Amino acid sequence: MTLSIAHLGPPGTYAEQAALLYLNWLTKSTGVEAILCPYPSIAQTLRAVDKGQAKLAVVPVENSIEGSVTMTLDTLWQLDSLQIQLALIMPIAHTLISCAQSLEEVKTVYSHPQALAQCQGWLERLLPNVQLIPTNSTTEALLQLEQDLTVAAISSQRAAQLYNLPILASGINDYPENCTRFWVVSQSHIPEARPSCSGRSSHTSLAFSTPANIPGALAKPLQVLAHIGINLSKIESRPTKRSLGEYLFFLDMEADASEPQVQSALAEISPCTEILKIFGTYNVLPISALNKGVSG
Amino acid sequence: MTLSIAHLGPPGTYAEQAALLYLNWLTKSTGVEAILCPYPSIAQTLRAVDKGQAKLAVVPVENSIEGSVTMTLDTLWQLDSLQIQLALIMPIAHTLISCAQSLEEVKTVYSHPQALAQCQGWLERLLPNVQLIPTNSTTEALLQLEQDLTVAAISSQRAAQLYNLPILASGINDYPENCTRFWVVSQSHIPEARPSCSGRSSHTSLAFSTPANIPGALAKPLQVLAHIGINLSKIESRPTKRSLGEYLFFLDMEADASEPQVQSALAEISPCTEILKIFGTYNVLPISALNKGVSG
Repeated sequence: MTLSIAHLGPPGTYAEQAALLYLNWLTKSTGVEAILCPYPSIAQTLRAVDKGQAKLAVVPVENSIEGSVTMTLDTLWQLDSLQIQLALIMPIAHTLISCAQSLEEVKTVYSHPQALAQCQGWLERLLPNVQLIPTNSTTEALLQLEQDLTVAAISSQRAAQLYNLPILASGINDYPENCTRFWVVSQSHIPEARPSCSGRSSHTSLAFSTPANIPGALAKPLQVLAHIGINLSKIESRPTKRSLGEYLFFLDMEADASEPQVQSALAEISPCTEILKIFGTYNVLPISALNKGVSG
Repeated sequence: MTLSIAHLGPPGTYAEQAALLYLNWLTKSTGVEAILCPYPSIAQTLRAVDKGQAKLAVVPVENSIEGSVTMTLDTLWQLDSLQIQLALIMPIAHTLISCAQSLEEVKTVYSHPQALAQCQGWLERLLPNVQLIPTNSTTEALLQLEQDLTVAAISSQRAAQLYNLPILASGINDYPENCTRFWVVSQSHIPEARPSCSGRSSHTSLAFSTPANIPGALAKPLQVLAHIGINLSKIESRPTKRSLGEYLFFLDMEADASEPQVQSALAEISPCTEILKIFGTYNVLPISALNKGVSG
């Protein structure tokens, strides 16, 4: 059996890089053959798993500078079949790729809006007069380069190597701690898809809607979790898309949803919500830990 | 004295439309002369007021479908001088603008990523095979039209009229209730900048950071507000940009910060936070209410 792993393409995106590192670990640790399947958007990547066209997907959830990848959260809420198996944290280092000989020659910089935002300070200091143009992915930005020597793109070092393009400047992100968290999701529980840490999972992700305009509608669930000492590692509100002022709340908590104490907390939260969805209970690993595990 | 109002340009953006409706109300109700000053980004729009180059700014905060405009929240947190004077809610109706004779001829659609996302379902149904290309503003998308008859742009009806371009389809947003909330901000309190409702303000916006990794760090402030019956109309987390998992929380609450009960709640919240910033206490109006007020 060949296992297919969906990701945001084309090859050279940070999502493909994360998917590839995960695939390498998976094949080496389980012997299962796997292939990468690029999709043109995050929504289509997740829907491929929902429809059974791919077994797993690796999707970005959050960047340390730019915050949530809202497309991932919104799509996960819409699809009922997906479960998070694992979270991976990958450092992000942006490079400026161009056929120009020097920064002075660059007039236009193309990249994904998140990458442009993550290099905003560097661009204002070193390229204050260039035009910044958004693209659908960091890889798509590279398409602009060969036609025009005054054009540059922000992408990864790996993308520069993959497409054999020259790097004009490295490590151009404003914050050195820049990293992105990815989720590995699948329809059903796949034991081999999870690195064997301890038996316990470290995190649980869930989302809920609350009855509108009730004071404390959010305070009550948070209070229940605080009461049993569960730390929230993230909270995010997203519009319900019905009317302005109605929200869904996405929570990541540091707890294993299979533990009795956590289960009773979730049972206590449930009546305060309209709809409550548990997206999975899983471990969070730096992506480098996968490679260490397989090279040894 | 001529009062300058900064907004995201160029002319034809939804932000310019909101700024213009506000300007018309302001000049008619106070007699003060005012001009619009377009800026290329939301960050530069807000910084213009911070530096005293403009007296007021009208900036988008949140769309009912796509959620927060994170650039507005992040910039407001960075600048210490700005106060919210008023919130305005404007309905958003997208149109497809093109020189093509029919939808079949359209091969490429340009627009701001938020507008593309708000018409995603319509595009998938009626233009399943077109290429979607992001631009920096809905107006910038119009620049692509005249060179190529297979190109379309998503923008407002007003932009089509302003640039004398044909509308191929109207009301193409997926959700009819689509609207955007704008904030009017200034450095100091400008009494004339606020429509005289009752003396009481309906909303207060604030943001705070919390000590990292303490269970209940967010639950405590929310509990204080719930206890005195204050409804939160919005909560949003944004990364501190220091490291993954550290957040700022942006809250909009339905309360007037000058009321003694609210002041004591804020005093109780303050010690649970690292940094607490109050962005202002103000009223929220449908933008049509401004026009009614001045036409009568």
